[in-house]
Amino acid sequence: MAQQQAQVKFTAVKPQLMVKTPKAVDAVNFYKSAFGAAEAGRSASCPPPTAEQNLPNILCAQLELAGCSFVVYNDDSAPYDLHLFLSLLSIFIEEEKIEGIGNQLCLETDDVEAAISKAVSAGAVVEGEVTEGGGACCGGRVGKVKDPYGYVWLICSPSNKCGPVEA
Amino acid sequence: MAQQQAQVKFTAVKPQLMVKTPKAVDAVNFYKSAFGAAEAGRSASCPPPTAEQNLPNILCAQLELAGCSFVVYNDDSAPYDLHLFLSLLSIFIEEEKIEGIGNQLCLETDDVEAAISKAVSAGAVVEGEVTEGGGACCGGRVGKVKDPYGYVWLICSPSNKCGPVEA
Repeated sequence: MAQQQAQVKFTAVKPQLMVKTPKAVDAVNFYKSAFGAAEAGRSASCPPPTAEQNLPNILCAQLELAGCSFVVYNDDSAPYDLHLFLSLLSIFIEEEKIEGIGNQLCLETDDVEAAISKAVSAGAVVEGEVTEGGGACCGGRVGKVKDPYGYVWLICSPSNKCGPVEA
Repeated sequence: MAQQQAQVKFTAVKPQLMVKTPKAVDAVNFYKSAFGAAEAGRSASCPPPTAEQNLPNILCAQLELAGCSFVVYNDDSAPYDLHLFLSLLSIFIEEEKIEGIGNQLCLETDDVEAAISKAVSAGAVVEGEVTEGGGACCGGRVGKVKDPYGYVWLICSPSNKCGPVEA
């Protein structure tokens, strides 16, 4: 068993970004225009939506960016969208704490300001100022934008500040 | 401006996994033993914790797995841990819907069962059965484990099922 376990090899890590049905197609277009993500493939809904439902025929899509993949998918069962859900939650808990709930992704780039500007042009909203040096593992300069689907993206300079591995 | 925006280039996408202070060091060890992640670097807390605080001197760590990076970080301001927080939320909303809140990551592997077994040996908990064919963008066989820090990992066979890009 130990030997079998040692052989486990993973070939990809893909964050899964849920959006409320039928917004996946909009989200895919947003990530293309905001970040330059490329679509590697998509799966159609099965069965396809009827004309009465007036939904785009997309279940999920795989996007590629900076050598990594992430998946955007419609969640049919979601009774809320993430943005609305977090807004409602903020009645109970300070919003900045809610944002820590695993819905942040970091994007590294040499030009933080241009990247933020491009994301905002596509519909993202800036959160706070670009800060210097406070990013630890996430680069020397760190800005933050929230996309229309509730996900927060840290836009950071490359993280060559991470120290050596300690025992 | 348009030209400047077109030049924005990202060099990395890194999911940010928040865990309640001081659990980051435990989480790093878990991701190493459960998934075989490698530590690329860590940043120490500044100022370092005092002897009275009895905390590991780690602010965040960058882990690498299957050619991708992710960051595990202590959230000093978190009044909760993610697992507890989601458990409490489930009083109000069905738990399976809560899990859609951006805290799922997909890991691809050729041996789904061995990967799940290894993760469980390290402390993860299996959620449901391994299913066939329902994964769409996430491979033909899909299992699910929840780690001790509240994050859900889909363990999937490679996703060569994604269809071609549609216009």
